[in-house]
Amino acid sequence: MAPRYSASLRGCLPWLLLLLQSVFILVFLIFLPNDYGLQKSLNEYPVLQDVNVMIFLGFGFLFGFLKKFGFSGIAFNFLNAAIGFQWAVILDSLIFKNSTDLQAIGINSLKIGLMCTFPVLISCGVVLGKMSPLQLIVMTVLELPLFSANRYIMTSYLKMSNHNSMMHGHIFGAYFGLAVSWSMIPPLTGNKASEENEKSRPLSEIFSILGTLFLWMFWPSYNSILLTESFQLRNAIYNTFFSMAASTVTVFSVSSLLNQKGKLTMMNVRNAILAGGVSAGFIAYIVQHPWISMTLGLISGIVSTISFTYSQYTMNSITLIHDTCGIQGTFGMPGILGGIAYTVIILMADFGIGILSSQALVGAGCILLTLALSLAGGILTGLLLKCKLLRPPKEWHFFHDRPYWEFPHVDSHM
Amino acid sequence: MAPRYSASLRGCLPWLLLLLQSVFILVFLIFLPNDYGLQKSLNEYPVLQDVNVMIFLGFGFLFGFLKKFGFSGIAFNFLNAAIGFQWAVILDSLIFKNSTDLQAIGINSLKIGLMCTFPVLISCGVVLGKMSPLQLIVMTVLELPLFSANRYIMTSYLKMSNHNSMMHGHIFGAYFGLAVSWSMIPPLTGNKASEENEKSRPLSEIFSILGTLFLWMFWPSYNSILLTESFQLRNAIYNTFFSMAASTVTVFSVSSLLNQKGKLTMMNVRNAILAGGVSAGFIAYIVQHPWISMTLGLISGIVSTISFTYSQYTMNSITLIHDTCGIQGTFGMPGILGGIAYTVIILMADFGIGILSSQALVGAGCILLTLALSLAGGILTGLLLKCKLLRPPKEWHFFHDRPYWEFPHVDSHM
Amino acid sequence: MAPRYSASLRGCLPWLLLLLQSVFILVFLIFLPNDYGLQKSLNEYPVLQDVNVMIFLGFGFLFGFLKKFGFSGIAFNFLNAAIGFQWAVILDSLIFKNSTDLQAIGINSLKIGLMCTFPVLISCGVVLGKMSPLQLIVMTVLELPLFSANRYIMTSYLKMSNHNSMMHGHIFGAYFGLAVSWSMIPPLTGNKASEENEKSRPLSEIFSILGTLFLWMFWPSYNSILLTESFQLRNAIYNTFFSMAASTVTVFSVSSLLNQKGKLTMMNVRNAILAGGVSAGFIAYIVQHPWISMTLGLISGIVSTISFTYSQYTMNSITLIHDTCGIQGTFGMPGILGGIAYTVIILMADFGIGILSSQALVGAGCILLTLALSLAGGILTGLLLKCKLLRPPKEWHFFHDRPYWEFPHVDSHM
Repeated sequence: MAPRYSASLRGCLPWLLLLLQSVFILVFLIFLPNDYGLQKSLNEYPVLQDVNVMIFLGFGFLFGFLKKFGFSGIAFNFLNAAIGFQWAVILDSLIFKNSTDLQAIGINSLKIGLMCTFPVLISCGVVLGKMSPLQLIVMTVLELPLFSANRYIMTSYLKMSNHNSMMHGHIFGAYFGLAVSWSMIPPLTGNKASEENEKSRPLSEIFSILGTLFLWMFWPSYNSILLTESFQLRNAIYNTFFSMAASTVTVFSVSSLLNQKGKLTMMNVRNAILAGGVSAGFIAYIVQHPWISMTLGLISGIVSTISFTYSQYTMNSITLIHDTCGIQGTFGMPGILGGIAYTVIILMADFGIGILSSQALVGAGCILLTLALSLAGGILTGLLLKCKLLRPPKEWHFFHDRPYWEFPHVDSHM
Repeated sequence: MAPRYSASLRGCLPWLLLLLQSVFILVFLIFLPNDYGLQKSLNEYPVLQDVNVMIFLGFGFLFGFLKKFGFSGIAFNFLNAAIGFQWAVILDSLIFKNSTDLQAIGINSLKIGLMCTFPVLISCGVVLGKMSPLQLIVMTVLELPLFSANRYIMTSYLKMSNHNSMMHGHIFGAYFGLAVSWSMIPPLTGNKASEENEKSRPLSEIFSILGTLFLWMFWPSYNSILLTESFQLRNAIYNTFFSMAASTVTVFSVSSLLNQKGKLTMMNVRNAILAGGVSAGFIAYIVQHPWISMTLGLISGIVSTISFTYSQYTMNSITLIHDTCGIQGTFGMPGILGGIAYTVIILMADFGIGILSSQALVGAGCILLTLALSLAGGILTGLLLKCKLLRPPKEWHFFHDRPYWEFPHVDSHM
Repeated sequence: MAPRYSASLRGCLPWLLLLLQSVFILVFLIFLPNDYGLQKSLNEYPVLQDVNVMIFLGFGFLFGFLKKFGFSGIAFNFLNAAIGFQWAVILDSLIFKNSTDLQAIGINSLKIGLMCTFPVLISCGVVLGKMSPLQLIVMTVLELPLFSANRYIMTSYLKMSNHNSMMHGHIFGAYFGLAVSWSMIPPLTGNKASEENEKSRPLSEIFSILGTLFLWMFWPSYNSILLTESFQLRNAIYNTFFSMAASTVTVFSVSSLLNQKGKLTMMNVRNAILAGGVSAGFIAYIVQHPWISMTLGLISGIVSTISFTYSQYTMNSITLIHDTCGIQGTFGMPGILGGIAYTVIILMADFGIGILSSQALVGAGCILLTLALSLAGGILTGLLLKCKLLRPPKEWHFFHDRPYWEFPHVDSHM
């Protein structure tokens, strides 16, 4: 019954982790500035903590929904985020050395570091349960520079704002993960054990709701943390609240509508309610009328629920892409929707004043750039992750804690 | 074994939700001001988030204590709060249009919107498990205007402060819910299955403690968010901390004392520890001596534990009111106690300076007004909710997720 | 099967609690100043709430890891913290009456009160499941004055900063608890039932991770709440983030390395990841280079994981000290490591400017003082707690909720 031990951990994982951590320390010692620069205020600290909770608790428990993968879902997310956060701070300090608003190391670096960890965790959701921790860490190490490059191109050459470039992380993370999943993992052959293990149970669903609720509640912080103008901040918070409320109501409606017996499905609801926040990230700070963000939330809710209900299971058999968490519906589609909404709103504002600025074109270009970079990078990363050295788990090890965790004190599982 | 499908969802729920959300968007588009007004500062945002966590996580998990109603308890609270929050913002903007301190749409509207959702959720606690989501939503939509009217009368005609009028939400929510429960739901006939399902199990109790803890920890934020004077804020936070600590210690004591074997009962403890915060809400901001709030906390703890232990089960058989969550003991009695404490403190202050102001009379009047409005409104709402159109669930559907949720991935329950 | 009722609760617990709470109220009424002094700002309120969450939720759920002791782990922590918090505010106001920075009652008292509760809860972790609530409360009441005395000596005679004196709470709490455990509880005889009950199960481990995550995420707040200089605050937050990230990565590595099959152990991971924050508390605010705090985090992670893996089980049989939560590895060793790091850093800074100040000596002295006071106090307290009046539970009552909780609604456990 218990899958055989996958042998990947003792061989490499401990040494890779120690090496990585030592390299991080050395880079800080040698390359990074020694003083933390001036710090205007610590008023942003509570918002920073909200984002911290989203990453470590929110994503961790969101990924705890598989009935036999609870430990791994929560703890590998934790490990990954702790690595990704440090690596993101380093990359940010090295790449954006000369751009003034990003340079100062301090609370600002923490903000950037935490925000950059989002796309990595989103990608991990796609391959949840199908990768060894070794592979996850290599993926994290490879994805972050690519995402930083994506942001660098957007902010430096396309003059996109720092905030908006970061919001493309939803699209980047989702499609990078899908590309990795496509290029690395062969279509599941339908192993009985792994199919059974991929299910959830009510208890693990409740843990997952807990994580989702933290993501949901603190999303206004995520959508406003990088904004500096006071009125943009206020708009972002206000509109995100309304967009999320609207998408929540819609999701319950559509989830019941799509079910033959009119019942609700927890997995749909849990995943799709975040859609309103994801899409609002692109436009919340520039919108002056709450009904616009509410309408976007309503559309996101519909798109996300439909996408989740129909695509997740058909995708596996048709496009050969397996998406454990339904990331395509939660982050991918709503992210693209948000990007399009941004372009439309800019176009309409331009139309209103009679001048056609290039900003709408830039908006569309950023989506395409992000899609191209994430898909190409994901495919290459996926090919690399197939490498035998990284000991990819066999299909019958999928979605199970047993290969990675010692259960000395436990008679039966859960 | 599995209750038959109650048929209420597909028929109406999705369309009602979509209709409601569209109406909200239209009202925002047509009636509400387009700009968000001036915003002095965003310092209150962390406190706003505390209240947000109380509503969506705190109440949600508090309502997750029934062993087979976990999904519904958590998710219907979520849906209800998302609807109530938007509806409250709209009502507040329309009703309080001319009163200056409430008008500006912005973070302030979010505060009011979230705070007004409290009484609705408290009412839902009384009827938890005994209403279909359709009925819950209709109740939310009907209760909020009544509560806004109650607040309007208090602030406009009785010159009660905005903060204090909001604190009457505990009384309003509790007695509205009890009246609905009395007028709508026939006394339980003692159906075996529903009686069994109304129990908790240790795991669902722990989820419920989690929610209660968030309510408990963030209660000082709830008791101070609407205050504007710095010294009142400080008093409210400080006194609420001490009142809650005192009531917590007392509840453990009384819970053990009331048990024949001297053992503690988790349900008592979990419900009664909030009493100190509820009653302190009325007086915390005006009290200068912590011993006063501690004494009130001690009394609230005693009253709430006794009320919970004796009334919850006898009420069902004697007064024919069924109260699933023991809301009467958690919010009803401590709320009235707080209102009385407010009146007494004003009276004593008046007595100290030798002048008898009308403020004490107003305090007593507000309690009576709130009781009258909530009981009358609750009875009428309850009669309306009996309507066949809303498909009230049968007694054997009570306290069970199965009529509302699809469990495709699950073999056995929990 | 069910352990017999330990009889300790009804006899004394309710009356002790009521008495204690009444004494607290009387002390507030008679001895403490009536006005709350001036309050400069409420900016620190969100940080205060973080620490509040750490104490009531973080420690509570951390202590919920025993499979049959979930209610007690969570609820006794809650009761204890509610008592300890009030008692600490009283002690602080009476002992530090004349030192200006501590005197003002207000948000500052809440901060001190919450922070002083930490060592008490740490001590409770050592004896978790082996003491009746009566004993726990007596321990709390005795430990706090001793810890206040320890802080008073450090701040008044050794001129240690308020922040740094509080950080010694990790060392104090851990060794006080270990001394109590040594002097009070006879070496476990290996009772089958209690040995079985001392184990965890995956579900209770996940509740425990939840608590640990809250402690982990809000540790930067804990390490900065008592600092007043803006640059120290910034340093403390920044360095704590990096120290914790480094220790987290290290712990995963060492945990896998120490296991024969290379697998991870959740108990190791869960306990050791806090080490980086504990040790960083001593130095985070004075360090200017993040690599220093990262290195300390790395070392703490190694020391804590090794200490946890090897010492917890051998300690019981060799030194006759039983440590339920592995507090020695989580708080004891990392605390001492942090104290040593502080001394070394001061020494090196002194060496750099060529003057040998007494500060390094004071640093070393504080560790020794804390160890001496906590061990001596712990042994005496332990002897007192053996007293029959306090009804210590028998070994077959250990680690089980049944002696303390009524389970009226529950068929089987969990």
